[in-house]
Amino acid sequence: MSQSLENRAHAPIGVFDSGVGGLTVAREIMRQLPRERIIYFGDTARLPYGSKSRETIIRYSRQIIRFLQEKGVKAIVVACNTASAFALEQVRKEFILPMIGVVRPGAKVAAKTSKNGRIGVIGTEGTIGSQIYTRTIREHNPKAEVIGKPCPLLVPLVEEGWLKDPITVEIATRYLDFFLKSDIDTLIMGCTHYPLLRSTLRGILGDAVNLVNPAYETARSLKLMLEEQGLINDDGEEAGLKYQFYVSDAAEKFRNFANSILPCEIEEARLVHIEE
Amino acid sequence: MSQSLENRAHAPIGVFDSGVGGLTVAREIMRQLPRERIIYFGDTARLPYGSKSRETIIRYSRQIIRFLQEKGVKAIVVACNTASAFALEQVRKEFILPMIGVVRPGAKVAAKTSKNGRIGVIGTEGTIGSQIYTRTIREHNPKAEVIGKPCPLLVPLVEEGWLKDPITVEIATRYLDFFLKSDIDTLIMGCTHYPLLRSTLRGILGDAVNLVNPAYETARSLKLMLEEQGLINDDGEEAGLKYQFYVSDAAEKFRNFANSILPCEIEEARLVHIEE
Repeated sequence: MSQSLENRAHAPIGVFDSGVGGLTVAREIMRQLPRERIIYFGDTARLPYGSKSRETIIRYSRQIIRFLQEKGVKAIVVACNTASAFALEQVRKEFILPMIGVVRPGAKVAAKTSKNGRIGVIGTEGTIGSQIYTRTIREHNPKAEVIGKPCPLLVPLVEEGWLKDPITVEIATRYLDFFLKSDIDTLIMGCTHYPLLRSTLRGILGDAVNLVNPAYETARSLKLMLEEQGLINDDGEEAGLKYQFYVSDAAEKFRNFANSILPCEIEEARLVHIEE
Repeated sequence: MSQSLENRAHAPIGVFDSGVGGLTVAREIMRQLPRERIIYFGDTARLPYGSKSRETIIRYSRQIIRFLQEKGVKAIVVACNTASAFALEQVRKEFILPMIGVVRPGAKVAAKTSKNGRIGVIGTEGTIGSQIYTRTIREHNPKAEVIGKPCPLLVPLVEEGWLKDPITVEIATRYLDFFLKSDIDTLIMGCTHYPLLRSTLRGILGDAVNLVNPAYETARSLKLMLEEQGLINDDGEEAGLKYQFYVSDAAEKFRNFANSILPCEIEEARLVHIEE
């Protein structure tokens, strides 16, 4: 690395997800680290990741990180629970870039704040099947009881735009019913789409259950990581475009979705053939 | 081509889809053409196709047809409505293999059997957005009124296994409500997953609306095409494995789903890295 630490601090942060879900993480980074530049990649040609295998998710993540590395990012945020569950450990061994996933930050906060040690997790089949939340929570609270439930229909419901629809309430109620009987005091929204359903989930669970948003916790952990490594951009200097967006398919649709949830207006999402 | 026509008649038929949906087409081919061998490819690493762009679907279809061609198939069935809508016309120009899609057979039957010329089509965003059913139906009945409606949640509901669930009925009712007000007498199930919801759809629409199953019509058209080209396997000779299944991810999950809907037991689905 010929770059000085100061120059590297001005480099952008690479953030990726299977599609639009990771924008909830990008949004938190924009709020908590307003001076940082972001290069976001959404793998819209191959989404969703949640129903696919570990081997496939590792291969996809590796291709994307290589792309972001070539763009000169100073750190990687794996803004997808499934990729954090399946690929993060492996790709950390293959790349020298500092990396952070969305699982550990949420798991840690849940472990530390739960009073009765009974913690629920909702996510994709891949994330729940991997048991990664259970293992990570237990590193911080070995006695915690972790109850996971895959909720495969919630992502398509968000993508259909039925965020507060009675049907969404009905489906979410069926999934969450499981937890209402389990006396949990904390629920981790373990998929980056779910914060968009926060008020629906809150309405079903009531105020007794604390909802953990890994997107928020990840932005906090990212800030700490950048500070520790001297990589935070604290002189306010801006070089070039602040936020750049790349996708592997359907750029216009991505842009519309992004503009509905981000605090800033995206002018363009550029198309990349990531598999090549 | 050094193969004689007789040898080619003994070659298998290549069938592909984004995942398990095309198995409803394979099932009809097994029923209507019991002497034919089939090589099925399900692109489970990149499913679903329904929300992706024309350019991406053409690229994926081309890779799969190349793979099936190397396996020595005598014809290709594009057992996916989205790929039939976006890619068939293009790949026909690039390969010498005879090819058939699922759109034309269903569209033709609907055009010929509708009494009032008012035809509904349900499918993915891609299929409905392409307007291919409208164009194809009008080739057979220029005065037909074709009303399309994308139903993006029906595929995830089938994959969740909620085939006759009250929630599925509620969601399908909301989508179909549109048609109940439009005085259609025919509805095309324009996505290969939908025949698995046939009885739910029938319950909502009642008996006045004729449900067209493109899988059934495609197997019929395939038979005619093979007969016309002297490619039908009519001497009953069997060479090697009758049905072979390949997927790009999660072979075991595919095998389980396949065994729940096919008339035969699949012993193995082999994994292929199709993008390489």
